[in-house]
Amino acid sequence: MSTDRPTTHEPEPRAIRKRRAILEAASEVFLRNGYVGTSMDEIAAVAAVSKQTVYKHFADKATLFQELITATVRDTDGAQGPIVSFGVGPLDEELRAFARQFLHGVMQPRVLQLRRLVIGEVTRFPALGRAFYDLGLATMTGTLATAFARLADEGHLHVDGPRLAAEHFIWLVLSIPLNRAMLLGDDHGVSTDDLDRYADAGVSAFLAAYGGTTHRPRRLKG
Amino acid sequence: MSTDRPTTHEPEPRAIRKRRAILEAASEVFLRNGYVGTSMDEIAAVAAVSKQTVYKHFADKATLFQELITATVRDTDGAQGPIVSFGVGPLDEELRAFARQFLHGVMQPRVLQLRRLVIGEVTRFPALGRAFYDLGLATMTGTLATAFARLADEGHLHVDGPRLAAEHFIWLVLSIPLNRAMLLGDDHGVSTDDLDRYADAGVSAFLAAYGGTTHRPRRLKG
Repeated sequence: MSTDRPTTHEPEPRAIRKRRAILEAASEVFLRNGYVGTSMDEIAAVAAVSKQTVYKHFADKATLFQELITATVRDTDGAQGPIVSFGVGPLDEELRAFARQFLHGVMQPRVLQLRRLVIGEVTRFPALGRAFYDLGLATMTGTLATAFARLADEGHLHVDGPRLAAEHFIWLVLSIPLNRAMLLGDDHGVSTDDLDRYADAGVSAFLAAYGGTTHRPRRLKG
Repeated sequence: MSTDRPTTHEPEPRAIRKRRAILEAASEVFLRNGYVGTSMDEIAAVAAVSKQTVYKHFADKATLFQELITATVRDTDGAQGPIVSFGVGPLDEELRAFARQFLHGVMQPRVLQLRRLVIGEVTRFPALGRAFYDLGLATMTGTLATAFARLADEGHLHVDGPRLAAEHFIWLVLSIPLNRAMLLGDDHGVSTDDLDRYADAGVSAFLAAYGGTTHRPRRLKG
């Protein structure tokens, strides 16, 4: 199957490559030194670009940090895709598959480290926390709430307040491992298998509370 | 009713008074300057005691910080009292009263500020996060799990895994406002009335999922 011909996909434009290198360097330096301890100089050095290039892409440190949050949170958003098709197959299976994917996304070390950094800096730099909040769970809550309202119309769920139901779903899935990871650091001791179990248990509790007439789960046995 | 006689309660021993003054000063300085930016000198100055006195009470900065966590978390523990008597009256009312008290305790500004500080420092100082974790929700989870196991034996709850049920209860009550407070800072915009509503909604979802034969809630309408 192999040939000697070089692969022919488009080379990545230079500006995009540099922008990505700066964001990767920023992630490394911010997580190592904290927000206050990070300078644009050091990011430029780690990215192996000039300081002017950094400023051409990002107006200042706050903008760069905000873009880093956007890029990192977007990486955890792969899970949003399946939401729109909830209700095509068995709802419990769909919710479990989504919950596992979502939880694994949020629990990536880089995402957790960034969340800790933002929380630690929120008093001095409230805009950082606001960006993390708005781009992260607030967005996911809106998407899920829309889906849950439709599922309730179709009889799959029993929901009067779709936003509240969406938040309960999210936190039944995330809270236990996320709290461990926030307070115990990278050595939080939650394995990949544990994550799947927490996701499944959260979905079971959610369906026991909110399952509709077409989806009548067995009484939950915690 | 008033008399001219001076009140006669025991004067607080000098050592206890000084210890408390040091802890109050430590809380102020740590929250203002962060863990790294805080020195025992500054704490002594704010507490208006000598540096020797500080060291007589607390061996080093790490010990002092750990004691501060212990004292702060203990302040949120008033809620533990009612747990042992769950099941005497109507369980939904008891759980709501407990959930409200617990949530108000965790959401005190000082407790939130300390939690943010600990999370931000956890990579460099894992012992701080471990103390917060063990003294805080881990303890509460154990107490609740014991109570839920008994309530399940009595038919009030349907619970196979009391620890998991306890964690689901805690996070159904805490998560939504706590996440806001972590990422949005002291201006999180959650009012006292909001806290009561979140507590009640968490209890309703919990009982819809875990309510037993003697406590059959209406189907939850989120």
